[in-house]
Amino acid sequence: MTKPVLKAIYKRRSVREFNNESVKIEDLREIVKAGSWAPSGLNNQPWRFVLITDTETKSQLADQTRYGHVIRGAPALIAVFLAIEDIYNEVKDHQATGACIQNMLLAAEELGLGAVWLGEILNRKDQVNRIIEVGDDYDLMAIVAVGHPVDRSRGSKRKELNSLIIKEILEDS
Amino acid sequence: MTKPVLKAIYKRRSVREFNNESVKIEDLREIVKAGSWAPSGLNNQPWRFVLITDTETKSQLADQTRYGHVIRGAPALIAVFLAIEDIYNEVKDHQATGACIQNMLLAAEELGLGAVWLGEILNRKDQVNRIIEVGDDYDLMAIVAVGHPVDRSRGSKRKELNSLIIKEILEDS
Repeated sequence: MTKPVLKAIYKRRSVREFNNESVKIEDLREIVKAGSWAPSGLNNQPWRFVLITDTETKSQLADQTRYGHVIRGAPALIAVFLAIEDIYNEVKDHQATGACIQNMLLAAEELGLGAVWLGEILNRKDQVNRIIEVGDDYDLMAIVAVGHPVDRSRGSKRKELNSLIIKEILEDS
Repeated sequence: MTKPVLKAIYKRRSVREFNNESVKIEDLREIVKAGSWAPSGLNNQPWRFVLITDTETKSQLADQTRYGHVIRGAPALIAVFLAIEDIYNEVKDHQATGACIQNMLLAAEELGLGAVWLGEILNRKDQVNRIIEVGDDYDLMAIVAVGHPVDRSRGSKRKELNSLIIKEILEDS
């Protein structure tokens, strides 16, 4: 029995090098739609998005982070925001945006694209809002860079499962 | 071209009613493994897990939330924690646990199981830690209830994509 979803989860890697091929706007919207189908507390769906392919805007955003080369080299960016007016619980709303972004990364992979979740730029989130002219009623959660991956092998490591499971409290059987 | 991952993302629903069939411990571990392959800032992997199938423990946990009937009726629970010592940025670590939980929900679905992300119980997280004898170096993030779904249709709604996309800043083309 094949398990395409598990396979996608295990083989997904952060992609930081893209070729010059542009990303179809329909694919960007599909990625955002996948994000929007994440669960959220009380189904409040606090996420909002800005899609960016404009070179000058990307260049200004690149100047806000030490990972500027990734942003400059990516044909498309999706800025993910939390709509302040929709917040009901900060921890849960931040978790929900994480679930949303994970859907987006998996969706990108399935569309034959690569993506990386950029968080360091949150240090300059006010500047980001100013550059893309988004009001302070939206709190930047991440920028996802998207493009066609340069072909190379990408490794990644995870802790042993045994070290992540604190304990198992199982029914006698 | 089929898109099994997108299909899973769009058809996944919160499942709150389970039949009596127990969940294999291997499946619970696979769900946790899928969670552990989420991305995290600096790859810090701050998530930890407790697997629970013991009836008495479930019963005590059920008393901590108004969704006790879901917990009591679920053959298995996975408590998801943030390891306090691994925290590097609260917002990003909460987002990472959200990404982790979304992987878990998608994995459960693919394994033929149903699951629901329970957050209201965080109001009594100290009591939860006490019941399952987990130290305060672990911060409860959610409990995921898992089981074989009772067969019924489950609807869900999302906002229109157009209302979630604040703007598109596109290259002239």
